[in-house]
Amino acid sequence: MKSVAIVGASGYTGRELQRLLQRHANISTSVLMSSRLEGSTDAGLLLEPLNPARFADVDGVFLCTPHGAASQLAKQAVSMGKPVVDLSADFRMRDAQAFAATYGQEHAAPELLNTAVYGLTEHKRSEVANAALVANPGCYPTSILLPLLPLQQHGLIDSDANLIADSKSGISGAGKQPSERSHFGNVHDNFLAYGIGTHRHGPEIAQELGTAIVFTPHLLPTFRGILSTIYVTPATGVDAAAMRNCLSEQYGNEPFVTVYQDGTPELHAVQQTNQCHIAVHESGPLVVITSAIDNLIKGASGQALQNMNLILGFDETEGLT
Amino acid sequence: MKSVAIVGASGYTGRELQRLLQRHANISTSVLMSSRLEGSTDAGLLLEPLNPARFADVDGVFLCTPHGAASQLAKQAVSMGKPVVDLSADFRMRDAQAFAATYGQEHAAPELLNTAVYGLTEHKRSEVANAALVANPGCYPTSILLPLLPLQQHGLIDSDANLIADSKSGISGAGKQPSERSHFGNVHDNFLAYGIGTHRHGPEIAQELGTAIVFTPHLLPTFRGILSTIYVTPATGVDAAAMRNCLSEQYGNEPFVTVYQDGTPELHAVQQTNQCHIAVHESGPLVVITSAIDNLIKGASGQALQNMNLILGFDETEGLT
Amino acid sequence: MKSVAIVGASGYTGRELQRLLQRHANISTSVLMSSRLEGSTDAGLLLEPLNPARFADVDGVFLCTPHGAASQLAKQAVSMGKPVVDLSADFRMRDAQAFAATYGQEHAAPELLNTAVYGLTEHKRSEVANAALVANPGCYPTSILLPLLPLQQHGLIDSDANLIADSKSGISGAGKQPSERSHFGNVHDNFLAYGIGTHRHGPEIAQELGTAIVFTPHLLPTFRGILSTIYVTPATGVDAAAMRNCLSEQYGNEPFVTVYQDGTPELHAVQQTNQCHIAVHESGPLVVITSAIDNLIKGASGQALQNMNLILGFDETEGLT
Amino acid sequence: MKSVAIVGASGYTGRELQRLLQRHANISTSVLMSSRLEGSTDAGLLLEPLNPARFADVDGVFLCTPHGAASQLAKQAVSMGKPVVDLSADFRMRDAQAFAATYGQEHAAPELLNTAVYGLTEHKRSEVANAALVANPGCYPTSILLPLLPLQQHGLIDSDANLIADSKSGISGAGKQPSERSHFGNVHDNFLAYGIGTHRHGPEIAQELGTAIVFTPHLLPTFRGILSTIYVTPATGVDAAAMRNCLSEQYGNEPFVTVYQDGTPELHAVQQTNQCHIAVHESGPLVVITSAIDNLIKGASGQALQNMNLILGFDETEGLT
Repeated sequence: MKSVAIVGASGYTGRELQRLLQRHANISTSVLMSSRLEGSTDAGLLLEPLNPARFADVDGVFLCTPHGAASQLAKQAVSMGKPVVDLSADFRMRDAQAFAATYGQEHAAPELLNTAVYGLTEHKRSEVANAALVANPGCYPTSILLPLLPLQQHGLIDSDANLIADSKSGISGAGKQPSERSHFGNVHDNFLAYGIGTHRHGPEIAQELGTAIVFTPHLLPTFRGILSTIYVTPATGVDAAAMRNCLSEQYGNEPFVTVYQDGTPELHAVQQTNQCHIAVHESGPLVVITSAIDNLIKGASGQALQNMNLILGFDETEGLT
Repeated sequence: MKSVAIVGASGYTGRELQRLLQRHANISTSVLMSSRLEGSTDAGLLLEPLNPARFADVDGVFLCTPHGAASQLAKQAVSMGKPVVDLSADFRMRDAQAFAATYGQEHAAPELLNTAVYGLTEHKRSEVANAALVANPGCYPTSILLPLLPLQQHGLIDSDANLIADSKSGISGAGKQPSERSHFGNVHDNFLAYGIGTHRHGPEIAQELGTAIVFTPHLLPTFRGILSTIYVTPATGVDAAAMRNCLSEQYGNEPFVTVYQDGTPELHAVQQTNQCHIAVHESGPLVVITSAIDNLIKGASGQALQNMNLILGFDETEGLT
Repeated sequence: MKSVAIVGASGYTGRELQRLLQRHANISTSVLMSSRLEGSTDAGLLLEPLNPARFADVDGVFLCTPHGAASQLAKQAVSMGKPVVDLSADFRMRDAQAFAATYGQEHAAPELLNTAVYGLTEHKRSEVANAALVANPGCYPTSILLPLLPLQQHGLIDSDANLIADSKSGISGAGKQPSERSHFGNVHDNFLAYGIGTHRHGPEIAQELGTAIVFTPHLLPTFRGILSTIYVTPATGVDAAAMRNCLSEQYGNEPFVTVYQDGTPELHAVQQTNQCHIAVHESGPLVVITSAIDNLIKGASGQALQNMNLILGFDETEGLT
Repeated sequence: MKSVAIVGASGYTGRELQRLLQRHANISTSVLMSSRLEGSTDAGLLLEPLNPARFADVDGVFLCTPHGAASQLAKQAVSMGKPVVDLSADFRMRDAQAFAATYGQEHAAPELLNTAVYGLTEHKRSEVANAALVANPGCYPTSILLPLLPLQQHGLIDSDANLIADSKSGISGAGKQPSERSHFGNVHDNFLAYGIGTHRHGPEIAQELGTAIVFTPHLLPTFRGILSTIYVTPATGVDAAAMRNCLSEQYGNEPFVTVYQDGTPELHAVQQTNQCHIAVHESGPLVVITSAIDNLIKGASGQALQNMNLILGFDETEGLT
């Protein structure tokens, strides 16, 4: 039995992690930290103030803090030899300048950027297993990269044409802090696009693809779930069936990725699971890919646990099925 | 005071029309017909069986029937000299073969197809005013054509590049008839794409644009409202500002189209109104246009009333503000 | 044409009043005040800081501030001879001690408590018409008093038995300020009781009935609407039909109260209207009354406008149908 | 490892049972029957036509059919020595006349009524463990009886006063069949009471309490969950604290009943669990009890599995935590 600390335990991803770990056969949560709810208890555990010295008492550290706050904590944990899965954005960009440009602040631990492994689990298993520090992917990027990476690697996409991802997310992606944005009166029965051309996940997706993408996020009147509708131009001679086959082969044995032979994914199919469901359809000259995940699980805490399982040597699916 | 008949008065668009006409200063509803609820009353009016002879007693006819059922009724009304606004799809395609290919049935009154005016009001005012038969546009096409037509007509769009419309609609677009699709348990907290590459509004949009479009409809967990996110490649030297200016000029004096100088439209801004709200943003090499309407009003009954107002010689906005 | 000021113009009730007044034939809004959004504009009008001197420029004043903040403003308006409709709770209790006990603060203008008229319009027409200061009823009390007052006045209720009101409200009753309570994640797909035995509207209802009531409010995952389910013990020889008849007679000519002969009211029937819909049913030894209103209209701004119409001498329904 | 059949496998309760059994260590589902979706597959299992002969191949039978359809199936299973948990209403009334009066049809197997055990698990453990046939309680009755039975048995309730249960349920209680009632357009953003004084669960609750109850069900715009607000008159000298203590003692060691020392239950706390959460508050002369369950789990399939666990000799909580 190994034990972990969760820093930022009172937010949505921190609580989701706690919930997942309650069913884990080999990992227990022994330290919860929260700057906001310090002193209260959560399922019997005291929420402690942020104190990196406590990392000494655990085998691994999950960072669920806002971006900017994770860098220093990660640095301390790594220096103590404790593996870190960081759910914030702090180590997702490989380049300190790209981080500064995207997040509007200097990186607080740029020397670690080369160490960090971008933890899109299905594509980085061996690196993650040996990582001291995993940058857990953003929720939108997870839903977009899982279908696109294999297609791109196999040359099925026309690399000269624009890639477009039109993504729709439930409100939990905006976090637990009350705001005008998350007020029921502004979400219920509503729908809108935001951050067109400027959302921070755009550069993250582009970095992993090695090519730009037009990315438009939208806010759904649901709590959980992301559905991305992705428009790709096939390479010469390629059609939807070829792309579907490519993805089916790539993910045929994956426990957490399902490629549809017919039909399209809906949020209901993936909510409360660590699954990514993918469908591929022809639409005139383009191929339209729909990809659905639970943003709090496969898009955050579930994938983080997949990664920690690999690091600590457990079955990757433990606690996630 | 003029009077109208509404055929298919018990469906969502029929009822919305009744509601709008209650506030109309110059048009009263004197005949309601419904094959489904025949014999019951609605706001004091008896729902009569379908009987074209009754068209003789009114000054205009709204057809709110399913597609296929409207053709014959329209034919009879036209032959009696009564102007028709048809909210079904029966006269939207200018070509009988295109209708048959799209709707899977022979057209029942092909001789009228040349007569029918496609009633996208802001672009067809004089034709509508003199029409014997108006084909009221589909809900998705209305949200997509209003922003795209002026840009295309002014040559601001690269005509070689693909046009993409990623549209999201509330469930009322699927009609009032109970079905697995409209069951609360399948809509609430859910989201999905449907009809990818095959939806019947695709050919309708393409016909009006004179060019193909990649169109993907989605189903939102809301009752009313459509938001279309449209991806266009600007012509050389054109940017988002130029497109925004073009739309602002085109629609500057329009009572029912609003072009945003900043911000993006949300469903809340247009629900229960006859408005179309449009925003234009840059996103890498593309321009992203978001366009929002109430599918039951600007996307159906409101636009139908705009058209009938023109035909009967009333102020176009009467009953709609 | 008369003009009014709205103080607290940026909250839900202030905005709803603005919306209603836009359709009013005889009253225009000429002054908007907001301590929160001062300096911004709303539909073309500048939001001014709170400044009672400006009351000199209008014919009437609506106070949409939180409780506690309205007393002083009302005092100043009254002293300037300007009629006030106060939508806050400040003048609802006739007794300063009762106010202090219920709201946990001393009343700032106790000398006005005797002047204030409790503006349940259908029961206080002549007093309201002549009032210098109207205390607009709470939303829950409006839904409960409209059915109970006539039954009580006609002796149809067993006065020894307990009265129970089990009320359910949409989240807009909690106001526009973001809070944990109003976060979409806590309202959506949820339902709960709150303030059992302690809610501030309990003493208000009891004051108007002259007898205690067991009142339990609940929070619905909707934006607008209240449905109260009221349990009464009939007096000897009285049944549901007798109570229904009593209410039908009392409200037969009222434009804003509808008594059902069969069926039960739902929120959909009253949302976006100034209506109160009431049904009366037998259930074993008790009579169950269901009563539905839109909390922001009949439960707040609509009833406030009804009252101001009476004060300024206009048709009571102006702007409300 | 034991195996069970589920008849009516395609409805909400049948599917919920399948889902629960997938996590069960000792019971597998080996036969699924469905008259509606016969021939399709569900999670790899073929949905078979209704064929009681197949009961020979399993160790226990769950009946998830509509009421009326279960009696004959139960009779056959019992005659084959196979224990039955019937989720329909067919064996809930102990008396054939009461069944006929409540359900409007003759009972098809009245000779079994005396055999059937009303499976409110926490109160019927030994009877259930030895039962040939368990009548699984209705969803509303479960939420109401769990708090009321101990209070009544300990004489804490004034037996001369009226009992009132004001219950609110998500739409899944109305079943999976599309209907006007369950159409998204009629549920979303709506709320209403129904079946006032006439709902079939009223007599069921009264039978188990041995005394009448005023029961009013309501329909919430949620999918899962029931919250019942129950009004009781305490016996002389009894207060809310005494009632809370009674329930805390009764249920202190129960895995699926939680009595709150402060706060009130919300649907979010019990959705997706087999829990019943109960709070007790004073409100003037009455005590108000709020009780929350997931109607599809503790109110149906979860409690059914609790009962089957007892019958087949497994830990009562297996598959339910």
